Amino acid sequence: MLTVLAGGTGSAKLVRGLTHVVSEDLTVIMNVGDNISLHGLYICPDIDTILYALSGLLDTSRGWGVKDDTFHFLEQASRYGVEDWFRLGDKDLALHIARTKLLKTGLTLTEVTKILGEKMKISHRVLPASDQHIETRIKTPKGELHLQEFWVKLKGEPEVLGVTYQGPEHPQPAPGVVEAIRDARNIVICPANPVTSIAPITYISGIRDALASVRERVVAVSPVLGGRPVSGPAGKLLRSIGVEVSPIGVAELYSGFIGKMIIDESDEVMVDGIGRLGVEALTTDILMEDKKGEQRLAEFVANV
Amino acid sequence: MLTVLAGGTGSAKLVRGLTHVVSEDLTVIMNVGDNISLHGLYICPDIDTILYALSGLLDTSRGWGVKDDTFHFLEQASRYGVEDWFRLGDKDLALHIARTKLLKTGLTLTEVTKILGEKMKISHRVLPASDQHIETRIKTPKGELHLQEFWVKLKGEPEVLGVTYQGPEHPQPAPGVVEAIRDARNIVICPANPVTSIAPITYISGIRDALASVRERVVAVSPVLGGRPVSGPAGKLLRSIGVEVSPIGVAELYSGFIGKMIIDESDEVMVDGIGRLGVEALTTDILMEDKKGEQRLAEFVANV
Repeated sequence: MLTVLAGGTGSAKLVRGLTHVVSEDLTVIMNVGDNISLHGLYICPDIDTILYALSGLLDTSRGWGVKDDTFHFLEQASRYGVEDWFRLGDKDLALHIARTKLLKTGLTLTEVTKILGEKMKISHRVLPASDQHIETRIKTPKGELHLQEFWVKLKGEPEVLGVTYQGPEHPQPAPGVVEAIRDARNIVICPANPVTSIAPITYISGIRDALASVRERVVAVSPVLGGRPVSGPAGKLLRSIGVEVSPIGVAELYSGFIGKMIIDESDEVMVDGIGRLGVEALTTDILMEDKKGEQRLAEFVANV
Repeated sequence: MLTVLAGGTGSAKLVRGLTHVVSEDLTVIMNVGDNISLHGLYICPDIDTILYALSGLLDTSRGWGVKDDTFHFLEQASRYGVEDWFRLGDKDLALHIARTKLLKTGLTLTEVTKILGEKMKISHRVLPASDQHIETRIKTPKGELHLQEFWVKLKGEPEVLGVTYQGPEHPQPAPGVVEAIRDARNIVICPANPVTSIAPITYISGIRDALASVRERVVAVSPVLGGRPVSGPAGKLLRSIGVEVSPIGVAELYSGFIGKMIIDESDEVMVDGIGRLGVEALTTDILMEDKKGEQRLAEFVANV
């Protein structure tokens, strides 16, 4: 079994690539820090993206939402004064309404995600990192914002003063998460935003400790290529928490719980620096610009 | 001012007709007995139909929902096991989500309906009969059903053993309803289902008493033409509560609070029988088969 720690769009590419190149079962442990209550619905953007990627429903050109979706609901809702900055497609909405309805019956997010995965005919296992609500909060001069408000509503423009994870004092891993780490042949950390996709997972001490205990089997794919993040707001967010925007910076952030890091071949010069952190650096082409790229990187990752 | 008591589809025709032929303000007092919580949303089918009719959004060929709507949400949702018998269009959904969101802030249904009416640029006033949840329940051999379950889900097929209105012991009219009846030049009862559209309104004693106190100004349009209801399940439901399916039967049901009843000219033979109930019967063509028909009947109603 291969276990994967994942965020949204970038992670979806590697996860999808892995489903094509490995024959073993995948367990995908999902970031829950971007979950948000909106319009009375409980929305899990990263979980949704992975569910859509694994079921073939994902709009791969946007990297989020359902392919061939329409926005009739949202266009109409905005006329009634409903906020429309979070782009909810009509087909996409169905997942949020189904999830919210199931959660209201008292099921946990893990149980609900399992049901939805089955309905979507997904054979791999998608596990929320936690059944508790742990929310990534971005501190800005305009006040503290939900990650989605910062990134989608305000287009990532405000200055970032810091990042916190709000939730229970002692957040617990969801059932099955620690076992999925402990029993995996290898654990892959996707090239996701370290601050808003991976850190909300490893913030849970039960998960961080489980990773650390099998550190030599944990391999991260760098989300940074040279001095720039592969996509998204990772650069700004890394700087805000005092981490250098480079594979070395990320390796240092992860060094407590990873044994290997896959970096781009153009960053070969950093192999030794990463090695000095006790992390073995491996180089390959880490850009996933098309399905071939996804499978090429997945092949490399699966055989580390 | 003209005040109208209304249900859904059939009422929408007369209400729309009235907006074309009268220059005075309309206050439409709405049935709330068909309101239903579905998918975590608070849906008011009759209120919605009237809001859509007054804003020009109504799909007039179906008589419910929004014109040019799509059903992408519902098609997708049914794959996740969400019940799809209640036909929620993508644009239609926006109204339910907006309403539910506003209700959750603590506003009353009257306040929320006013806000939505303003957003929809409706100049007339749409008032729920009550801010309390009063639910029309249909007793059948399969158990007691919500009206929508009986009529939409089960297509009105089960035998009807009786009808009850479930709600608070002493249901209260919403603010403004009694005044709208007391201060109106005339009060019009739409040709709506007497059992499931009008009775849930007059079941509220404050409303029934207000109507009775101005009885000579209350005019009902018969929902029955000869022995058959103009549309919908009225016949079956009238029989179930022991009321004859004829203009006379309905006149008798309403006789405590109406002074006049408009019946079809083909039912002229019933004028005397209705007169004996203390209700003056007026005859005209009551079928509204097109916009011309709506306005013709509205013209007649407005000048009674």
